Amino acid sequence: MQARSKLKSPEKFIRPLIRNIKGYIPGEQPQESRVIKLNTNENPTPPSPKVLQAIKKATDYRLRLYPNPNAKKLRQALAKLHRCKPENIIIGNGSDELLALATRCFVEPRTANTKTQKKISKQTIQYFTPSYSLYPILANIHGARKKEFKLIKGYGLPDKKLLSKGNWDFQAALTYITTPNAPSGAGYKTSKLAKLCKIQDGIVILDEAYADFAEETALELAFRFPNVIISRTFSKAYSLCSQRIGYFIAHPKIITALDKIRDSYNTNELGQAAALATLDDLKYYKRHFKRIIKTRNQTSKILESIGFDVIPSQTNFIFVKPKGLQAKELFTKLREKKILTRWFDTKACRSWLRITIGTEREMDKFLLSTKAIVENHKQR
Amino acid sequence: MQARSKLKSPEKFIRPLIRNIKGYIPGEQPQESRVIKLNTNENPTPPSPKVLQAIKKATDYRLRLYPNPNAKKLRQALAKLHRCKPENIIIGNGSDELLALATRCFVEPRTANTKTQKKISKQTIQYFTPSYSLYPILANIHGARKKEFKLIKGYGLPDKKLLSKGNWDFQAALTYITTPNAPSGAGYKTSKLAKLCKIQDGIVILDEAYADFAEETALELAFRFPNVIISRTFSKAYSLCSQRIGYFIAHPKIITALDKIRDSYNTNELGQAAALATLDDLKYYKRHFKRIIKTRNQTSKILESIGFDVIPSQTNFIFVKPKGLQAKELFTKLREKKILTRWFDTKACRSWLRITIGTEREMDKFLLSTKAIVENHKQR
Repeated sequence: MQARSKLKSPEKFIRPLIRNIKGYIPGEQPQESRVIKLNTNENPTPPSPKVLQAIKKATDYRLRLYPNPNAKKLRQALAKLHRCKPENIIIGNGSDELLALATRCFVEPRTANTKTQKKISKQTIQYFTPSYSLYPILANIHGARKKEFKLIKGYGLPDKKLLSKGNWDFQAALTYITTPNAPSGAGYKTSKLAKLCKIQDGIVILDEAYADFAEETALELAFRFPNVIISRTFSKAYSLCSQRIGYFIAHPKIITALDKIRDSYNTNELGQAAALATLDDLKYYKRHFKRIIKTRNQTSKILESIGFDVIPSQTNFIFVKPKGLQAKELFTKLREKKILTRWFDTKACRSWLRITIGTEREMDKFLLSTKAIVENHKQR
Repeated sequence: MQARSKLKSPEKFIRPLIRNIKGYIPGEQPQESRVIKLNTNENPTPPSPKVLQAIKKATDYRLRLYPNPNAKKLRQALAKLHRCKPENIIIGNGSDELLALATRCFVEPRTANTKTQKKISKQTIQYFTPSYSLYPILANIHGARKKEFKLIKGYGLPDKKLLSKGNWDFQAALTYITTPNAPSGAGYKTSKLAKLCKIQDGIVILDEAYADFAEETALELAFRFPNVIISRTFSKAYSLCSQRIGYFIAHPKIITALDKIRDSYNTNELGQAAALATLDDLKYYKRHFKRIIKTRNQTSKILESIGFDVIPSQTNFIFVKPKGLQAKELFTKLREKKILTRWFDTKACRSWLRITIGTEREMDKFLLSTKAIVENHKQR
């Protein structure tokens, strides 16, 4: 241990690119108990009993073996569900892994002396603001150029005319679109997304992490356009955050390219087993989606009734602008009451709070606390 | 489905770098039963009953939650075991994930117009041949320069003089050393590794995937040199391939840099729980290491007695050159008898077969089959 303190710093061995970036800051995962956790969009419902049973059944001497490197059974089951072929599907260690993989598959790292627009586009990762806060981090890690474009009022998608007038890059190597949007919860029409995908001469990832809570899915676009990837996950809607299973649906050639640079054993065997069992019990989950949507709509109404702005949500969370106090203050006061929500310190999000929909009971407590904090603030 | 066949090919959206490389080909993971699997260096012992119990105990409603993003408890337990701090440790989704992460953290992707040796070194990934066949693939994926250096006779490490005479790059950004070596099984003295690490002005990863079967570990070098990373895994010795847990030990600044570009939720919760429980029952595993080493030595002797060349092994596998027939032929014939071994089609490995040490019973069957194949071959 002593020797270590005398060591020279290894800074010089780290790439300047990496030295100069910041990592992603995940939502708090508290160790303390009795916390109401409305901060990372987890489903309040436990996984189906059949899923837990399937994991336990697979927990035996076989764990000594490597997982199936191609998640063959899971891809077959997903292909059946989505009416495509296993060749249209790649499984990731959560969809986050695949979102990162895409940067390395489709985007050239930036080099200093790029002069033509064509070369710049090849190095560009593009996304709307606000959207999933991981995208700029992934661009930074890869050394790509970032291009941000503000969503229109109500967090809607801009049309071609607006994009043309603005700074949109129609040749960007990679465009991420969170649909429905996070953190706002706003949903998008497939017809509108189709127009965007059609005019884009580069890969478009439609990140459908929350699609199960939405009115529409744009899944069909992965089969209509060679440049479109649909991203899905078992984490949110299917209560399997802990098990790290997400997937992409796209043209087989896109999948093959991603597959070449994927870690062979990127998904754990119990995760594969859990996801498979999930697909065998979709009824269980669909019942809970309905409940969450109902709770979401009720919570939204109540918050509106006390003067909060609430974006109509098509997800399992809501984006709200408090009345009478700053979002950050409400966030902090709720944290003191052991209620975790998510506040993003960016220009587009600073006035807003993102609240995951928990159980009815949790949302009652959240509403009670929120009302008390607002009242208390008024009286000061 | 029909529409898809009319799609234009998405080839042009894929980076030329990725289009032109081949992915890693993992050892066969057979779906059929009754196969004797001696091809991917898995431990024949099941995980400890306490580990299986711990996984089952953690399999409940909590799976809906994200795993601990920093694997805090596991890092604390490993720090205790290795007498260092949690800040010296990063947990990966198997050590393969970390080996890949290292390319992105320490090595500049190659650009066309590099002229100085200094810049070339910054883009260089260096390793001995033969060693872990993943290294060149990782270099290709990252767009790094590859530099190979042949191990000396008996798969030993060359000394400084030999390296200087040869083509070794003492400034290479990243050097991988598999120790003990795979696929040969040869072990290396820490004193010899220390000399290599000391003269190397770049990161050196000592990949100790098989260290638990060896006479020495070079762990201390991670604390003696700022440029040294020790790579370990729970897969091989600890019968947890399926759960994907590996780790690096290094200077805290190295760990911090890797951590910035790691997926926040790269390791699954049940994997973390399994690894923790493993550390609580090391006695169980150490007993089995002894058994495997004994079986390994016995198997080696018997193969030598029938004229095979066998490299003295410090791992849970042996590297053998058959007598009387080609390695590939023995591999194929064993495969027909449902005994899987590993044959690498490279210049350095083509004449050899890598055989994982299974149970006594499995090795008896392997030896019987091998003897029969050799006999049969003689009589033709």
